Amino acid sequence: MGAISKDGLEIAKRAREIVREKIKDVLGEKIKNFSKEELLIIERVVHATADPEYAKLLVFKNNPIYHGVKAIKEGKPIITDVNMVKAGIRYDKTYCFIDDERAYELAKQGITRAVASMRLAKEVIDGGIVVIGNAPTALLELINLINSGIKPKLVIAVPVGFVKASEAKEMIRNTDVPSISTIGPKGGSSVAVAIANGIIALSKNERV
Amino acid sequence: MGAISKDGLEIAKRAREIVREKIKDVLGEKIKNFSKEELLIIERVVHATADPEYAKLLVFKNNPIYHGVKAIKEGKPIITDVNMVKAGIRYDKTYCFIDDERAYELAKQGITRAVASMRLAKEVIDGGIVVIGNAPTALLELINLINSGIKPKLVIAVPVGFVKASEAKEMIRNTDVPSISTIGPKGGSSVAVAIANGIIALSKNERV
Repeated sequence: MGAISKDGLEIAKRAREIVREKIKDVLGEKIKNFSKEELLIIERVVHATADPEYAKLLVFKNNPIYHGVKAIKEGKPIITDVNMVKAGIRYDKTYCFIDDERAYELAKQGITRAVASMRLAKEVIDGGIVVIGNAPTALLELINLINSGIKPKLVIAVPVGFVKASEAKEMIRNTDVPSISTIGPKGGSSVAVAIANGIIALSKNERV
Repeated sequence: MGAISKDGLEIAKRAREIVREKIKDVLGEKIKNFSKEELLIIERVVHATADPEYAKLLVFKNNPIYHGVKAIKEGKPIITDVNMVKAGIRYDKTYCFIDDERAYELAKQGITRAVASMRLAKEVIDGGIVVIGNAPTALLELINLINSGIKPKLVIAVPVGFVKASEAKEMIRNTDVPSISTIGPKGGSSVAVAIANGIIALSKNERV
């Protein structure tokens, strides 16, 4: 997972074994309900958080890995809600509009900058991949865009928090759009980046 | 917490109330063992992860908030282990050396780039704040630097993972350096950024 030294490789190998054991413990018999690729994404998230509960929380809806991998292979853009998520994703065509001047302007109308950034990204989102690790309001705005006809290839929807995040994630799961999301309030930038980099690695046939 | 719209402010307010309740539930009587500032940092982390367990895992050692706030007020630099952590921190003098050409060169000697980046940052680390959200090897190298006489003002030590991370965090707690760390494998970039931005907000007397 990016480790290039001998030390790094050894840590990565042992960590992977432990992560797999923890996931088995959490999922039990239900591990059979996941594809090999889905389990690789789950491993990435548990690795990034040291929180095996994510094995129970992650939901793969509408064949998201297939669509995400295809989008990356076709060179489609990734749009993130915040710069921290952008910084973690290992893919050149990754964009974030939250610091765009126009986002500051739009925010004066009483919306969050996260919402503004989604509106600004509308055309790039159509046919692209959206990664939301932070702002529930960004996800709600994305759902508005989807309802108005915008079609992202994949939405990685893991905004975090005790207010609106669970509901927004439930709403994206109720659309036809391929999504990877979490049940409940947990999520965050580290989770979002782990999933996105997993999809990118799968698109390169890398061992994720 | 960065929210500027009416919607954003309302979400932030309700979220804060819920976070405080969750922390009370987790800590019980032990909540009295924490200062007001420490509780504000704990709130930030629980807010960023939606994981109240962090209230039990965070350790404040050697008066770290005082030293961290002082360092920020004096304009000392922050050094991070990875770019994702740098991207999340709201402070201009934040540096990361992992993509430095010299880090790639040093890594050829069989060390991780995270280790190399700490070595390269040696002079900036002396008297600065170090934030490690990812790589246990970076923290182990930092401890080597500390043992050789380098004195950071504060170390935010929350590398994540089931291999070496717990041990490295235990080691930093056994030094005289002010530190904020987690017990056990949990941590990560989101946690690191939440703590760092909490210290920065406290240094501006912002309500964090």
